[in-house]
Amino acid sequence: MSKKKVGVILSGCGFKDGTEIHEAVFTLLFLDKEGVEYICMAPDVEQTFVVNHLTGERTNEKRNVLVESARIARGNIKNIKDVNPEELDAVILPGGFGAALNLCSFGTEGKNMSVNPEIERFIKKSHSLGKPLGFICISPVIAAKVLGNEHVKLTIGNDKATAEVIESFGAKHENKNTDDISVDEKYKVVSTPAYMLGPGPKDVANGIEKLVKKVLSLIK
Amino acid sequence: MSKKKVGVILSGCGFKDGTEIHEAVFTLLFLDKEGVEYICMAPDVEQTFVVNHLTGERTNEKRNVLVESARIARGNIKNIKDVNPEELDAVILPGGFGAALNLCSFGTEGKNMSVNPEIERFIKKSHSLGKPLGFICISPVIAAKVLGNEHVKLTIGNDKATAEVIESFGAKHENKNTDDISVDEKYKVVSTPAYMLGPGPKDVANGIEKLVKKVLSLIK
Repeated sequence: MSKKKVGVILSGCGFKDGTEIHEAVFTLLFLDKEGVEYICMAPDVEQTFVVNHLTGERTNEKRNVLVESARIARGNIKNIKDVNPEELDAVILPGGFGAALNLCSFGTEGKNMSVNPEIERFIKKSHSLGKPLGFICISPVIAAKVLGNEHVKLTIGNDKATAEVIESFGAKHENKNTDDISVDEKYKVVSTPAYMLGPGPKDVANGIEKLVKKVLSLIK
Repeated sequence: MSKKKVGVILSGCGFKDGTEIHEAVFTLLFLDKEGVEYICMAPDVEQTFVVNHLTGERTNEKRNVLVESARIARGNIKNIKDVNPEELDAVILPGGFGAALNLCSFGTEGKNMSVNPEIERFIKKSHSLGKPLGFICISPVIAAKVLGNEHVKLTIGNDKATAEVIESFGAKHENKNTDDISVDEKYKVVSTPAYMLGPGPKDVANGIEKLVKKVLSLIK
């Protein structure tokens, strides 16, 4: 039996302007522990902005989402436009503000957000092929926007304002703790709050481990 | 009983010019799992260079080690010059080329390397206070340079050229596998090869989990 392959969509490197690093690394760890091959992917676009993670202030730098994501992937990463969803068994999106800034515009436009066309195409196609999808931290807003009219069940923890945006797209939000997951068996969508709630690596890792195992169990 | 505190010295964010991200995140995870508070630290210096992790090529950018390390630490990081080793129970150094480029000059000068004065002071002081020290991946070259004349036992895996440099400083190298550790009980120094050998997150995490547990067991 050949190894299962799971795509991991990254959005930069650092939670204030890119992928939440811990969430991404735990995703790769638990996929590797389950004997699954992971394919890291990111869009080849400029970051919406760059934040100095020491001071929290925006800088004047320009950074590229694919290039910065390669730091987490140890150089082993693909431009998402070059990946065919049919080659993968499942897809997982870690969070961080990068998911809300570089993969969609939730971070700047709230409920008026749009999703990067490559990301939207990839998720829609994967979903239509019956591939399970995992969404971590803030990334369920992307699931809600792209799949919400199917009343897909999602969690981003317990943040009321974000939950309202998710429900405004037609998805159903349920409150969950950091070390727990929301599972929509019908649509094969799994989500976990991770650093939307914190408090630290141990609890976030527990939630992501459950998400990875559940996503893998939903592969046909 | 108050929580134990362990310092984690970072060297940027990304294995080709900074901290090996997976190694750092696993260190934080296993410290958190053991109920230990971690204090991330880095020197406030410019990176030796910046590498595009997608192409592997050097760029013309300037990045600061403390600022980039803050991405892994989620903003919760201190300038190492402001930390008193007496406040910590142990210290761990993840690897990545950052350890060999930004914390010392092994990456550019080999056996003629020197160690950043703040890092040297911190490690010497911690060691003289009897604090256990953990070194991951390439960072044992720093231990060898600073503590080598005590014939401290170390591993960087099985790379002959690096092992020879380590022994040239007076330390003793022993070959180890990725999921194993080298322990010098007398000098309270623990090391593990991590991504000096690879092959991926699962094995690297196993070695780092052993290292973290052993370092904590050596605290007086």
